[in-house]
Amino acid sequence: MFKIETCFSPALYNYYEAKDRSVVVIDILRATTSICTAIASGAKELIPVATIAEAKEYKNKGYIVAAERDGQKLDFADFGNSPSFFTPSNVKGKTIVYNTTNGTQTIKMTENAKLSLIGSFINLKSIINFLTHNKDNILLFCSGWKNMFNLEDTLCAGAIAQQLLNSGEYITNCDSTHAAIDLWNLAKDNLLLYTKKASHRTRLNKLVSENILEYCFSLNIVDVVPCFKEGKIVDILRK
Amino acid sequence: MFKIETCFSPALYNYYEAKDRSVVVIDILRATTSICTAIASGAKELIPVATIAEAKEYKNKGYIVAAERDGQKLDFADFGNSPSFFTPSNVKGKTIVYNTTNGTQTIKMTENAKLSLIGSFINLKSIINFLTHNKDNILLFCSGWKNMFNLEDTLCAGAIAQQLLNSGEYITNCDSTHAAIDLWNLAKDNLLLYTKKASHRTRLNKLVSENILEYCFSLNIVDVVPCFKEGKIVDILRK
Repeated sequence: MFKIETCFSPALYNYYEAKDRSVVVIDILRATTSICTAIASGAKELIPVATIAEAKEYKNKGYIVAAERDGQKLDFADFGNSPSFFTPSNVKGKTIVYNTTNGTQTIKMTENAKLSLIGSFINLKSIINFLTHNKDNILLFCSGWKNMFNLEDTLCAGAIAQQLLNSGEYITNCDSTHAAIDLWNLAKDNLLLYTKKASHRTRLNKLVSENILEYCFSLNIVDVVPCFKEGKIVDILRK
Repeated sequence: MFKIETCFSPALYNYYEAKDRSVVVIDILRATTSICTAIASGAKELIPVATIAEAKEYKNKGYIVAAERDGQKLDFADFGNSPSFFTPSNVKGKTIVYNTTNGTQTIKMTENAKLSLIGSFINLKSIINFLTHNKDNILLFCSGWKNMFNLEDTLCAGAIAQQLLNSGEYITNCDSTHAAIDLWNLAKDNLLLYTKKASHRTRLNKLVSENILEYCFSLNIVDVVPCFKEGKIVDILRK
């Protein structure tokens, strides 16, 4: 039997053992949703960077750069952090340098994990299928919002954990995983309605259109399992 | 309207503003339950200390010391951390120096809060009544277990938040508060059954008798509102 744990904040990550397990990074609004979209649109690879300075450096070297702070595109960047930018015509075959308020820092933290995968609602089934066959101890790593707990990442962690427990090959003795599963089961019939109370969504509502929010809360739109390895994100399913 | 926020771990405390609000520290298994019991049993005051060394120093000075690590009484101490020690015959009129794995450190962290109160299931109604009349922005501060989220403290935070929202004078835009309330509403009809999955309880089951666990999950047994101020815990209701 393999174990599932859930970490609710980057500030708690170091209390969990990541070295010997597969980590799934989740940042529904919007980094991991956007990364799944970019990979599904045929991007060759994404290079997540932790700081604006690094993103600028790459821009000066001629890279395509997607970068935002607090939901808004940075001036020097080609795109912001909305999944709507990551269309095949914008990204197919290209390398994209990527920097966001929360998500890219979280991804960088998993550099030493045994395996680091990118999870979201839009690739939920693909990530669950992969983990069901990969069979490994798992840490579901919610990006939260500025180190605070958030509902949407927790719900996605709950969805993954519930399916893995259902497979009969996983167990959990982790309170945050139990909480995430219970919240997922409360929310799953109407994710958008449930997450109307999410503070991060309230904040983003001012910046993000309703159809982008709907997209971020849609299940199983793309069949990719982005994997972060040696500084780059590529699809682990595309060998 | 006054705001409610909930912090799930001591490692997240510094991301919240505590200076301008009333903080409720919660450590159901068992520090805050034991403190409420001691105060209700007539203890003059409790002095929480953060380290074993400090507890020993007080012991050498002749103080009564309650101290444990990982659920077990330390050799030099008079009592451990079980509420069963804090009977009137043991504590009435006395000053008790108190040190635990988790809870006392959490309490010490609130030294700079506007007001620091001790919450548990056993004084739930008293603390809600106090907060309903006190009218202030509130941070519900869950001690967790070694900086990780735990279910039992979260449920107590949810119970307090739900009642305060019901009063019509409080609002929340905090995801962890929403999650705590939803989990409380799932669990409230049978707290013991629900928290059977709590990892901390599983761990404590080996050390703590079933009747102590039942006590820790019982509502409204004592009518006290312990308050931490200038290094000491006394009942704010007892003027």
